[in-house]
Amino acid sequence: MAHNTIGNRLTLTTFGESHGEAIGGILDGCPSGLELNLDEIQHELNRRKPGQSKLVTQRKEADIVQFLSGIFEGKTTGTPIGFIIQNSNQKSKDYDHLKEVYRPSHADFTYDKKYAHRDFRGGGRSSARETANWVVAGAIAKQLIKDVQITAFTSSVGEIFIDKPYQDLDFSLIESNEIRCPDEKNAKKMIELISSIKKEGDTIGGTITCVAENVPVGLGEPIFDKLQANLAKAMFSINAVKGFEYGAGFCAAKMKGSEHNDIFNPDGTTQTNLSAGIQGGISNGMPIYFRVAFKPVATLMTDQESIDKKGKRVVIKGKGRHDACVVPRAVPIVEAMTALVLADFWLLNCK
Amino acid sequence: MAHNTIGNRLTLTTFGESHGEAIGGILDGCPSGLELNLDEIQHELNRRKPGQSKLVTQRKEADIVQFLSGIFEGKTTGTPIGFIIQNSNQKSKDYDHLKEVYRPSHADFTYDKKYAHRDFRGGGRSSARETANWVVAGAIAKQLIKDVQITAFTSSVGEIFIDKPYQDLDFSLIESNEIRCPDEKNAKKMIELISSIKKEGDTIGGTITCVAENVPVGLGEPIFDKLQANLAKAMFSINAVKGFEYGAGFCAAKMKGSEHNDIFNPDGTTQTNLSAGIQGGISNGMPIYFRVAFKPVATLMTDQESIDKKGKRVVIKGKGRHDACVVPRAVPIVEAMTALVLADFWLLNCK
Amino acid sequence: MAHNTIGNRLTLTTFGESHGEAIGGILDGCPSGLELNLDEIQHELNRRKPGQSKLVTQRKEADIVQFLSGIFEGKTTGTPIGFIIQNSNQKSKDYDHLKEVYRPSHADFTYDKKYAHRDFRGGGRSSARETANWVVAGAIAKQLIKDVQITAFTSSVGEIFIDKPYQDLDFSLIESNEIRCPDEKNAKKMIELISSIKKEGDTIGGTITCVAENVPVGLGEPIFDKLQANLAKAMFSINAVKGFEYGAGFCAAKMKGSEHNDIFNPDGTTQTNLSAGIQGGISNGMPIYFRVAFKPVATLMTDQESIDKKGKRVVIKGKGRHDACVVPRAVPIVEAMTALVLADFWLLNCK
Amino acid sequence: MAHNTIGNRLTLTTFGESHGEAIGGILDGCPSGLELNLDEIQHELNRRKPGQSKLVTQRKEADIVQFLSGIFEGKTTGTPIGFIIQNSNQKSKDYDHLKEVYRPSHADFTYDKKYAHRDFRGGGRSSARETANWVVAGAIAKQLIKDVQITAFTSSVGEIFIDKPYQDLDFSLIESNEIRCPDEKNAKKMIELISSIKKEGDTIGGTITCVAENVPVGLGEPIFDKLQANLAKAMFSINAVKGFEYGAGFCAAKMKGSEHNDIFNPDGTTQTNLSAGIQGGISNGMPIYFRVAFKPVATLMTDQESIDKKGKRVVIKGKGRHDACVVPRAVPIVEAMTALVLADFWLLNCK
Repeated sequence: MAHNTIGNRLTLTTFGESHGEAIGGILDGCPSGLELNLDEIQHELNRRKPGQSKLVTQRKEADIVQFLSGIFEGKTTGTPIGFIIQNSNQKSKDYDHLKEVYRPSHADFTYDKKYAHRDFRGGGRSSARETANWVVAGAIAKQLIKDVQITAFTSSVGEIFIDKPYQDLDFSLIESNEIRCPDEKNAKKMIELISSIKKEGDTIGGTITCVAENVPVGLGEPIFDKLQANLAKAMFSINAVKGFEYGAGFCAAKMKGSEHNDIFNPDGTTQTNLSAGIQGGISNGMPIYFRVAFKPVATLMTDQESIDKKGKRVVIKGKGRHDACVVPRAVPIVEAMTALVLADFWLLNCK
Repeated sequence: MAHNTIGNRLTLTTFGESHGEAIGGILDGCPSGLELNLDEIQHELNRRKPGQSKLVTQRKEADIVQFLSGIFEGKTTGTPIGFIIQNSNQKSKDYDHLKEVYRPSHADFTYDKKYAHRDFRGGGRSSARETANWVVAGAIAKQLIKDVQITAFTSSVGEIFIDKPYQDLDFSLIESNEIRCPDEKNAKKMIELISSIKKEGDTIGGTITCVAENVPVGLGEPIFDKLQANLAKAMFSINAVKGFEYGAGFCAAKMKGSEHNDIFNPDGTTQTNLSAGIQGGISNGMPIYFRVAFKPVATLMTDQESIDKKGKRVVIKGKGRHDACVVPRAVPIVEAMTALVLADFWLLNCK
Repeated sequence: MAHNTIGNRLTLTTFGESHGEAIGGILDGCPSGLELNLDEIQHELNRRKPGQSKLVTQRKEADIVQFLSGIFEGKTTGTPIGFIIQNSNQKSKDYDHLKEVYRPSHADFTYDKKYAHRDFRGGGRSSARETANWVVAGAIAKQLIKDVQITAFTSSVGEIFIDKPYQDLDFSLIESNEIRCPDEKNAKKMIELISSIKKEGDTIGGTITCVAENVPVGLGEPIFDKLQANLAKAMFSINAVKGFEYGAGFCAAKMKGSEHNDIFNPDGTTQTNLSAGIQGGISNGMPIYFRVAFKPVATLMTDQESIDKKGKRVVIKGKGRHDACVVPRAVPIVEAMTALVLADFWLLNCK
Repeated sequence: MAHNTIGNRLTLTTFGESHGEAIGGILDGCPSGLELNLDEIQHELNRRKPGQSKLVTQRKEADIVQFLSGIFEGKTTGTPIGFIIQNSNQKSKDYDHLKEVYRPSHADFTYDKKYAHRDFRGGGRSSARETANWVVAGAIAKQLIKDVQITAFTSSVGEIFIDKPYQDLDFSLIESNEIRCPDEKNAKKMIELISSIKKEGDTIGGTITCVAENVPVGLGEPIFDKLQANLAKAMFSINAVKGFEYGAGFCAAKMKGSEHNDIFNPDGTTQTNLSAGIQGGISNGMPIYFRVAFKPVATLMTDQESIDKKGKRVVIKGKGRHDACVVPRAVPIVEAMTALVLADFWLLNCK
């Protein structure tokens, strides 16, 4: 397996299994002289951390990032930033019953067929634990393009969704509730839904909306590195993502050109922004916004039929510690991946 | 501008402007010894060609691909396949009125801000004419992985959509109508809708569904080259695409885990296929299917307000030859990009 | 075969066989707004062309480059520059006797083992004809970094070599003789040597020295894209190159540190320049210079023993049109590859 | 700074400064199921370690590699192999006097101009300490292509050189002396020379010869990833390397074609091997051999004139712990880089 690298100028290469000694990464291409706020980086990691609230998995990782290189006297030096996050509190024993079986809608079957030899404990490399690395790198990227405001929030859980445009929301409320939804009424309903789903031993999907404001004009490379294409690729790298749309998205497929076109103002801004700040693959300075769909978590706390390596039918017991809904913890991941993509394009554009 | 290359092992690099002398590309990484059916390649190009029917633009390009290298005695040699498609029938004069203005929801503004100097004729590099290159390369990719069946079709235009799962459709009917919709009743409605929209001088969006059957197990690279991530990136490279979802897609966000999980059969197939043949970023052998949303074409045949380079308000007259709906011509493009992604992973997996 | 691309920001991807319809390439990443002097590009191509003098092969190619994209109103647009060079005057018949045999020290054997199916005519893809593409791209690169002076010349043929440092040479004399050697006395001897070697039906090796002056400080990326490493790679891409040394080169291996160290002047220049303008993989502003060794051409005009595909002994007759010494024609190729490397780093450094 | 990655299919990405907390890397692309001998890896690292003998620097690093991922139950899983090597015994204080000055023929000046902010302690990122990472990765690569025998040795120090072809040497003697030279008589002379040079507070250059035997036919990619080009690039990545030649090398420039051509035997081997096992950029199955020139270490134990950041003249005192000759410690580094290049091509060829 190669392909553990993302980015052109700002590249993140990662390693690590869920129950290995540590996970980590190398962020290469960060310019020198950037004063890094390490607390902010740790803060982002804490936002992603398991065990934050009753809604999410109770696996407790200290999740402390250690930087090993690339920073000197508080500032980046332009050399690669190496970092690791120790794994701890792995209850690998919890996974012994999974050694020989394939969990439904997990990566057990495909990894086994592709690699034959795999670290099955906690999902190994396919575990969403990997995304902790992304959050670290994304937090640095955010500081690199600090004029850009990147904000993600939970926009739906199951059938409950925010029925307002993002402009009508108060982003300062996002972190005020466990579900990271700025619409308090719906936030409450979402929390109730997840609690009730959890009691059933079941899980539920949801969507996250992300908005990037104050993006400079000119980011994105036409043809095969369009801004929306790299955002989409970054989002589909996140475990459980099944859909991505930007601007008018799937609704655009129902619209007429006369409805969809964004008419210019004399200053180059547009009266509407159905294009979501991107035209021809390049940012036009208007806000970029998109929506990401997450499927329900595959691990249930109820029994499920499945097969083992030899094709024998087995029943998988619901054990271990898992999220009933990944969406609240995925909010900082969506922001991190967005920051990585935008910072990469920002560096590419500096010519 | 760099970034005119896509793929890892099978790489396509392209060049060309809508009204330049020629467009073309280099397909690198195709193994030696592949017997190429050149007629099939030209056939795919003909499916994309303008002027095929009354529904689409009347710009008439001969669109004949010429191969310049990499093929000897009818078979590939393993060296790069260079090809060009001459441009002809350009009515560049039609675009003189656009030299100084920015058309709404086009790439004029962003290209001008990014590059300052641009070939404005016919959209230049941002024109969908570029996709003819992709269809050539995709047609070769199809022949490389000839056991895989890739089928795309129009699944909606405006509010008219096929209300059946793809399994209930007869794919042999796709090419039987101008809109490339295998559901004859809806095909007829779609055609009528486009005709009526066209008379208004307006345009309309739509969606394309694509199905890849008989994909071997093991394609896709975990983490940053997941199969779905590269498919998404390839689709968002296509002009006018605003959304991509695979499997249950955005619906998955409303589902419970107990509804969404695909239970295994003893032979490793699954009873349902909401995962759309991909788990953990790797193909599992079940059919891959996804849906792509296209916005309505931005060029209208009616007057539109806009601005010129200096920010002065102007009125843009509807002129030139354009599609009222891109979806039928985009069907072979979606197939071509799918073939390029799958063939690339297929080569990566050959170890 | 993939891997027909060189460069990071300024990438050249090429295609073409010696006796195919055309060769060509795509130069991607050239910034917009560069006014291109097309005559200078053609001039560089003419310097490489066969049939220039009695010393070199009499194969006569028109070698006219046609640009197909990326240039508008005389200036680059930032989009990829596609170009082709038609092949003509191929005497493919001359190669029929080579279809089944492996010429000594040619790529026939290795291509056949690697690809099984190959275009054997004129060496196919392994022919130095490919370097015409590089000269085109390099000529654009030269114009991109026009403040940098890149000068290559023949510094030895066989045992005859210039016994002066490059600083004592008058570069304006390089093009005054067929061998491209600025030392007139030695130039004459070299020409005589080649003529006599040619009469024997034999060939002879030689070296080229290249000097890049006025290189800005800061080009080169530490660790795996060191300036010298990418120069070396570019030079070893040229057919027949067997050695590369920069600065003191192999002599440095015999020196003491106290002899080799370049002592600084207060302005940051150095009193000596044994480092050849590169320290830690990064340019320091002093002239870069290096030497490239070329082996003698493998094609002889005398009979040679060899084997055919089946391992049967055969005698290969000396036929066709070949150079008795590649060095004079390789001078513009060395310059072109140097320009590509430096321009690539120059773009990478623009941040 | 990006560009801390080498390789196509087997990629090594590294990080780390000489006096930071740790150095390390990520080896991506290693296939699953490879049984790893960790002792052999540590053994290679020990061969590179400082403080091995009186000839080399007395800096004592424990240099213990820790693997953090990618290995499960003793075998690779196909996921990235992350590893770190803790720094210890840094005497950073030794470098305080270097904070504001530029040492002659070091990377201080160029790093400072390129990055402005740099970790000056012990050379920071430009230190050869980085090569410990390469040795770890190379040791894994060796195990991946275990049928290939890669052997490097010291072939000259100063004016003392082995005057025999490598075929006449007994490789089993290489590790029998501190200088890693299999020719015992010359080994002794080299050791004496270095000892005497060291007493003077001076340093001396040398060359390393490397031989790769039992390389399969077909490794190397024509045009821009020729086998010799990637070997050259890998060697010029090593600190202090000034020259690279393979096969007949610079001598080839003095030879006639009739002398240089390698005539085939009926079985496809060649009677001579001046091509050094590579034709047209592709291995032909004969041994690959090349020679690498190292300049003398720039750090002297005597006073040297130099300048500080402001251009003021200063005298740099000889302090710290350094090698009088890098060549013996560079032997395992040359082998490691060779193994990485060959293993990468070996994976690329597996199709």
